[in-house]
Amino acid sequence: MVGAGPGDPELLTRKAYRLLQEADVVLHDDLVSEGVKALCAKGCRLHNVGKRYADGVDQSRRLQAIVELVLTHLAAGRQVVRLKGGDPAIFSRSVEEIELLRQHGVEVEMVPGITSGIAAGSTALLPLTERSESDGLMLVTGSTLDERTDHLQTIVQWIVLGNTVLLYMGFKRFAEIRNLMYGFGLLPDTPVCAISRVSLPNELCLFSTVDRLPDDAEKAALPMPVVIVLGVRIRSLK
Amino acid sequence: MVGAGPGDPELLTRKAYRLLQEADVVLHDDLVSEGVKALCAKGCRLHNVGKRYADGVDQSRRLQAIVELVLTHLAAGRQVVRLKGGDPAIFSRSVEEIELLRQHGVEVEMVPGITSGIAAGSTALLPLTERSESDGLMLVTGSTLDERTDHLQTIVQWIVLGNTVLLYMGFKRFAEIRNLMYGFGLLPDTPVCAISRVSLPNELCLFSTVDRLPDDAEKAALPMPVVIVLGVRIRSLK
Repeated sequence: MVGAGPGDPELLTRKAYRLLQEADVVLHDDLVSEGVKALCAKGCRLHNVGKRYADGVDQSRRLQAIVELVLTHLAAGRQVVRLKGGDPAIFSRSVEEIELLRQHGVEVEMVPGITSGIAAGSTALLPLTERSESDGLMLVTGSTLDERTDHLQTIVQWIVLGNTVLLYMGFKRFAEIRNLMYGFGLLPDTPVCAISRVSLPNELCLFSTVDRLPDDAEKAALPMPVVIVLGVRIRSLK
Repeated sequence: MVGAGPGDPELLTRKAYRLLQEADVVLHDDLVSEGVKALCAKGCRLHNVGKRYADGVDQSRRLQAIVELVLTHLAAGRQVVRLKGGDPAIFSRSVEEIELLRQHGVEVEMVPGITSGIAAGSTALLPLTERSESDGLMLVTGSTLDERTDHLQTIVQWIVLGNTVLLYMGFKRFAEIRNLMYGFGLLPDTPVCAISRVSLPNELCLFSTVDRLPDDAEKAALPMPVVIVLGVRIRSLK
């Protein structure tokens, strides 16, 4: 199980590159970039097992189908890489896949990758942490946040204390999440930076505030995927 | 400014490797591993500018000394890499260095690296995030936490909600920090994993609880550096 990093094929680890070169089969998610896929050896079979894989079935059946595919290739003596965008330990349902594979006697080695939110700290030159100013960093996913108001309250406290939050998969529902966060004391003028296509040649970086971001992003026609960095000290260091 | 990753030279990015190969001068921190340093090209000058650099002076003078060294090498037409352990955007005082360099007209490019806490999720096979169980991840540094009880309260809330915390530089003062966290409702039997020398061949991984960790770590004679992963669902997936 290998992390593909944020998108730029040069931001893949040397180990991930070696494993892609050695693999007979690569099962990858939707978000893995073309540049990274192009690093696979000639003759390597590439399967997209992303959200559209096993279309029409629910998520647990999709995982089951992926595991069956892995088992089939392993039984044929093939070296299999399961390639995930970013880091495999972060927001990627790897735990379920690993546990299912283990039930079938398959040992998994995990190779970390650079997760897009942290990569954006470098590619967009943002202050993610600053000594004695913002001592911590939080990575959250927007996909279930609107149902988890207790989480939102803690996230707002974290921001108000001066720390940084990286919001993944929260762009489409940002206005909704933000309105709930206002209820816990988030200030409308809290700085944000929305980064589209982190690390790719067409990366876009939009500085705004929580209040203005939805409008600003619409005007800028910010393409997906987008990661949002929130924090009272967020600014460009360029 | 380049991230050296957690230690394993194979967990360096391909870009960092290329830049090390092209560099005339590499200024590195104490925590950069021997294996990573060995990737520099022959003839490259290596300077350790870690905490012991410019010994006896305070931290702001040390930064000033580093910047002067960078300026001297740039003036001589040399390609300079400032190599930082892990990721340069996380807990590494990069912001101060970048702002100081910019005051001298030096443009900085930042190259992300894999930070040790997230790397440990892969090397020790830990569930850092799990869909609908633990939706978020927090990275905190223990170096100033005992003076920041408002931060500690939020961190405890985050753990109690089922999320994961990665504690950097908090091993030596863990008992002290933990006792303060008890005051905010942290349960003594909260699972932890302490990982020593993440990603190196002699990596050690100790599963314990917040209550027992100080004793268990002493018995195991856990060597530095150590990153601590806390969370109600932390367990080995091996």
